[in-house]
Amino acid sequence: MLFFTQCFGAVLDLIHLRFQHYKAKRVFSAAGQLVCVVNPTHSLKYAPTRCTAAQASTEQGTLPPCHHHEAVHDPQLVPCTCPLFSCPWEGHLEVVVSHLRQTHRINILQGAEIVFLATDMHLPAPTDWIIMHSCLGHQFLLVLRKQEKYEGHPQFFATMMLIGTPTQANNFTYRLELNRNQRRLKWEATPRSILECVDSVISDGDCLVLNTSLAQLFSDNGSLAIGIAITTSKVHSSEAEV
Amino acid sequence: MLFFTQCFGAVLDLIHLRFQHYKAKRVFSAAGQLVCVVNPTHSLKYAPTRCTAAQASTEQGTLPPCHHHEAVHDPQLVPCTCPLFSCPWEGHLEVVVSHLRQTHRINILQGAEIVFLATDMHLPAPTDWIIMHSCLGHQFLLVLRKQEKYEGHPQFFATMMLIGTPTQANNFTYRLELNRNQRRLKWEATPRSILECVDSVISDGDCLVLNTSLAQLFSDNGSLAIGIAITTSKVHSSEAEV
Repeated sequence: MLFFTQCFGAVLDLIHLRFQHYKAKRVFSAAGQLVCVVNPTHSLKYAPTRCTAAQASTEQGTLPPCHHHEAVHDPQLVPCTCPLFSCPWEGHLEVVVSHLRQTHRINILQGAEIVFLATDMHLPAPTDWIIMHSCLGHQFLLVLRKQEKYEGHPQFFATMMLIGTPTQANNFTYRLELNRNQRRLKWEATPRSILECVDSVISDGDCLVLNTSLAQLFSDNGSLAIGIAITTSKVHSSEAEV
Repeated sequence: MLFFTQCFGAVLDLIHLRFQHYKAKRVFSAAGQLVCVVNPTHSLKYAPTRCTAAQASTEQGTLPPCHHHEAVHDPQLVPCTCPLFSCPWEGHLEVVVSHLRQTHRINILQGAEIVFLATDMHLPAPTDWIIMHSCLGHQFLLVLRKQEKYEGHPQFFATMMLIGTPTQANNFTYRLELNRNQRRLKWEATPRSILECVDSVISDGDCLVLNTSLAQLFSDNGSLAIGIAITTSKVHSSEAEV
């Protein structure tokens, strides 16, 4: 009996996913972009002390030791960069991607331009929508977070981090674009390195920030589609012209 | 003696304005855009009842009577649309521009693309930076407002309103662009009609919204440069392709 119930649940999930995917394709397929449906995860990790420590040591030029492993001082090791869970893992930067895929089940997508379709935007904060994006020979982590910076007023924060060093990150520009209801919002910036800690990027507000009312204007039936493009970096035109 | 003090004050003001203008030109002159230095005005008008009444009557298809003139019911008359002052004036839509220029000293600029340079961004909320923009045979009102929606957390709201009817407004698209520190933020939308009341557009959050931290990232020495462009409306590309 339990088996049949589980099967039925799985079929329902598949139908739901198919419906979400169809909805996204309807909006974006003409542009020939890959649409990825991203389901929310209730964030379980809010450990500011760890981030502060990580950031301080990154600024000093050493890689941050994980607070679960105070005794380990190998500067080649980085802690788990998953924004969702406080995870005791640490390892070399080159294996962070496989750790995130295997342990935290974060999907990875290929392609220069993709559409990130975050579902169930109404869920209460704190909630994260996360995906990895493989492009131009590197992997990026896209994080959309619903968080209450001011109590009772949830906001959405979206940023892209390179799974690499800050020097490597400076070679790229990422663009996030929302387009609906005759409104368009574009954010372009240099990605931060995953070593800089996504929590501090979001608390600094140095990312795409949406109030609930704007998020609703850009949403379609509770889902928010964000167009993502990554290019190799060039100085922004009007700054270059100075 | 008073005369000399005033003369000295005027000369200092001129030097300050010249310096601001030079600063803006340094950033934007290469693009051949007209730079307009806009000084802040501490907002004296917060009268939500008037706006609610105005909006309700606009939705019903009649033009809003001003609350200072309850007895007047001429549907051809509109109240003063100045976002800064509670002004008892009312008149025909065609003379709103000259009223705003003459009575409220709001500057008007010509050109398809201009740069709005708001000075003294650090001033406490509520503060408004306002200018009129003449383009494509119509006049637009650009409002940048610093306001505390959540106490202790000021935000910046920027929107463009057509000094015309909602039907006329649907023929245009406006773009606001911030570009500094390797970050770029663009907002594109259909302007609202001045009859819809700027206060409600801002309280709905249907405009470009900046947290203080983002505003600081885009500011240069306390001034925020916003590139403005107005075009005749076309359906946004990805929506048209559906």
